[in-house]
Amino acid sequence: MAVNSPLPVAADLKPVAGIDIGYAEAGIKKPNRKDVLVMKLAEGATVAGVFTKNRFCAAPVQVSKANLEAVRAGGKPIRALVVNTGNANAGTGEPGLQNARATCAEAARLLGIDAQQVLPFSTGVILEPLPLQKIVAGLPAAVQNLKADNWFNAAEAIMTTDTQPKAASLTTTIGGHAVTLTGISKGAGMIKPNMATMLGYVAFDARVAQPVLDDLVKYAADRSFNCITIDGDTSTNDSFMLMATGAGTLVIDKAEGADYEALRDAVTGISTHLAQQIIRDGEGATKFITIAVEQGRDVEECRKIAYAIAHSPLVKTAFFASDPNLGRILAAIGYAGVDDLDTTKLDLYLDDVWVARAGGRNPDYKEEDGQRVMKQAEIVVRVLLGRGDADATVWTCDLSHDYVSINADYRS
Amino acid sequence: MAVNSPLPVAADLKPVAGIDIGYAEAGIKKPNRKDVLVMKLAEGATVAGVFTKNRFCAAPVQVSKANLEAVRAGGKPIRALVVNTGNANAGTGEPGLQNARATCAEAARLLGIDAQQVLPFSTGVILEPLPLQKIVAGLPAAVQNLKADNWFNAAEAIMTTDTQPKAASLTTTIGGHAVTLTGISKGAGMIKPNMATMLGYVAFDARVAQPVLDDLVKYAADRSFNCITIDGDTSTNDSFMLMATGAGTLVIDKAEGADYEALRDAVTGISTHLAQQIIRDGEGATKFITIAVEQGRDVEECRKIAYAIAHSPLVKTAFFASDPNLGRILAAIGYAGVDDLDTTKLDLYLDDVWVARAGGRNPDYKEEDGQRVMKQAEIVVRVLLGRGDADATVWTCDLSHDYVSINADYRS
Repeated sequence: MAVNSPLPVAADLKPVAGIDIGYAEAGIKKPNRKDVLVMKLAEGATVAGVFTKNRFCAAPVQVSKANLEAVRAGGKPIRALVVNTGNANAGTGEPGLQNARATCAEAARLLGIDAQQVLPFSTGVILEPLPLQKIVAGLPAAVQNLKADNWFNAAEAIMTTDTQPKAASLTTTIGGHAVTLTGISKGAGMIKPNMATMLGYVAFDARVAQPVLDDLVKYAADRSFNCITIDGDTSTNDSFMLMATGAGTLVIDKAEGADYEALRDAVTGISTHLAQQIIRDGEGATKFITIAVEQGRDVEECRKIAYAIAHSPLVKTAFFASDPNLGRILAAIGYAGVDDLDTTKLDLYLDDVWVARAGGRNPDYKEEDGQRVMKQAEIVVRVLLGRGDADATVWTCDLSHDYVSINADYRS
Repeated sequence: MAVNSPLPVAADLKPVAGIDIGYAEAGIKKPNRKDVLVMKLAEGATVAGVFTKNRFCAAPVQVSKANLEAVRAGGKPIRALVVNTGNANAGTGEPGLQNARATCAEAARLLGIDAQQVLPFSTGVILEPLPLQKIVAGLPAAVQNLKADNWFNAAEAIMTTDTQPKAASLTTTIGGHAVTLTGISKGAGMIKPNMATMLGYVAFDARVAQPVLDDLVKYAADRSFNCITIDGDTSTNDSFMLMATGAGTLVIDKAEGADYEALRDAVTGISTHLAQQIIRDGEGATKFITIAVEQGRDVEECRKIAYAIAHSPLVKTAFFASDPNLGRILAAIGYAGVDDLDTTKLDLYLDDVWVARAGGRNPDYKEEDGQRVMKQAEIVVRVLLGRGDADATVWTCDLSHDYVSINADYRS
C-alpha cells in the first residue's frame, strides 16, 4: 500500500555502537505481536527529544519530559527508553502517570539503573487504562534479548496502523571519524506537526554534549517530522528522540563548525527520510504530495498556506481521484488565514504545469496536462506568492476510501 | 441520505409578498436541470448580505459586495438577484468579473432596471470560465416564469451536490402585523464558517431600514450559517442574503425594541433551520453532531475547540463507525490551540453519558453507554472547560466513505 516506499531490509540497518535493542510480545492489545521495545544506551550517551504540543499530552510524554529535565538539572544520564504500542496512556489522569513511572521503575530494576534514567513512550488507543501488568510481565523478555542488530525488530515493535516498518541507516565520515546513524519511525494517521503522531528514534555513535543535542533535535524535527501531515490530527503522544551513544570517536562539543554541520545535515537527512516514510505509508495513501510555497513574506505564512492545502479534504480527495479539480487548491490558499494576500500575484504549478497565473487560470493551461500529473504517484504542488523570498515545504498524502475504512475500524 | 431531514413540501413554502422567483434550465454544466435562478424584489425592498472571507472570493461575490456598497452610498436599491449553479466563476480573474457584470446587465435589461441593481451569485466548479452565453440564453425563460410561489423550484435550482432541496417557511405576528418568512439554502461540502460554502436566501415581507438589515444579517449568520462545518473547507462563493421586501405592514426602523427582537429571533430561527439542513445533507453524512463547548473564558476559545473536534477526520470517522473511540475527542481538544488549557478541569459528555472527568476517563464510564449513544443518528458532544461562562455551539456531520466517493467523483 505504501507509496514508493520499499520495505527496509534488516541487513541494511546497521547497528550503532553503544545502543542495544530488545523487544517482547506482551499481548497489550493483541496477542502474537511485538508490542514492547527496550533501547539500552551505553554510559556517556546523551539523549534529546521534542514532544507533542497537544494539551492532552500523554502520561509517558510528561514523564519523559520530566526525566530529561532532571538530566539537564544535573541528574544521572538517560540510559534506557521503553516503548509500548496498543495503548497510548493518554487521557488517563493521575493513574496514567503512576503507570508510566511504574514502567520506568520496572525497566530500571531489570537494567540496574534508576527509574529516572528511563524514558517511557506509548502509542495506541487514548482514554483507556494502560495494562501495566502486561508490560511488566513482558519487560524481562525484552531485556533478555537486548542486542545491537535488532533495529528491524524495533521498527516492527512500534507499529500500530502502519502497513510496514519504517527504518533507515547511513554511515558517513565526519572530520575523519566514521559515524553510523540508524533510525526508526512509526505513524500513519493523526499525523501533523508539533508533533506528527509519530514516534521517531535516531541513534548515532558520536559523543555530543547535551546542549548541542538539544539544538540538533529541534533543527532536525523542524525540517522533517514537523513538515508532514496526513490528516491534521496532532496526537497526544508524538515524540522524536535523538540518541548520541558516544561509543564512536567523533566528539561534538559546540553547535558550530564543519563537523557539527555535517552531523546536523546527516541527522536531518535520515530524519527527513523517516518522516517521508510515514507519509508514504499514510493511512490509505495512494499518492505522495510535496507542497512547496515560495515567495512568501515569511516562513509562517508559507506554512499556513501549505498546511491549508495539505489539510483540505477536497484537495486530498481530488488527488485520490486523479482529478485536476485544481480550483480547490486556490480555495484552500484563499482561506489559509493570510488576510492581506493579493491573489492577483499568485502562480500555481503542478509539477511543471503552469496552472494559474496572476490569480486566474493560465490561458495556456490545458486540462490534459493537469490530468497527466494528477495520475502520478508523486506530485509537487508549487505556489508562488510573489511577495517575498521566504518558503516552506510540507509533505502529505491523499484522502482515500481506505483512510475512512482504517479509521472506522481501528479499534474493532 | 440526509440525516433526519424530511424533504420540504412545496405547498408548505409560503410566498412572501414582494418577491417573485423564476428559473431556467440553461445547460451550464449538465442538460435538463434547473441551473439559473432569478429573484425579483418589489420597490422599497432592502437587501443585506454576508460573504465568504476567502481571499480567492469569486467574481460574483466581488460584484455583489460592490453593488450593495453602492446602495449604502446612496445608489438605487437592489431589485434582483441572479444565481447560477454549475460554475463558481472563481479563480477566473478579470474575465470573470466581466462575466459577472455582463450577467447583471442582461438581467437588468430584461427587468427594466440598472445593472447595479442586480446581485450575481455563482456556485460550482472553481477555475473554469463562466459560460456566459448559456446564462444569457437562459435568462429570458427565467424572467418569463417569475412568480410568487416558486420557492420549491428555487431551492432545487441552487443545488449542486445536495441530495435534496433545502427550504423553510414560517409565519408569525410581530407587533400586531403578520410577517411571512421563507428561505432556501444549498451546500453540502466545502462547508465551514465565514462562510459555509453555501448559498442562503431568506426573504420576509416587513419593511426594514438598510442599517438595521445590515445588523440583522450578521446577527443571524453568526448564530446559524457560521456555526456549521462539514469538512473545514471555506468556499470562494459563500453568501447569505436577507431580503426585506417591504410589501407587508410591519416597519422596523431601528435595531432595538420588542418588534425588532421578535423579527431578529424569527430570522435567526429560520436561518438556523436552513443551516442545519445543510449539515443533515452533508456530503456522505450519516450522523448529525452538535458540539457544545461550555465554561470557556471567551466565545473564541470555545469555538476553537468546537471546530477542532468538528474538523478532526479521526473524530468524524469514529462517528461514522459508531465507535466510542472518544480519546480522539480529547486529542482534538488538546491541539485546538488553547495554549493555557488546564485539562485537569475538563469534563466530556456524550449526550447524557459522562465520559471524561477532570481530564481523565470517568471511573464510572462504561463502554456500552458510549456505544449506545454513538449508534444514534443525532449526537450531542458536550465539553465543559471549567474556566469561565462563555460557550459556543457548532453543528457538523461524520466522515464516511460516501464523502470520499462524492468528492472524488464530483467533476466526472
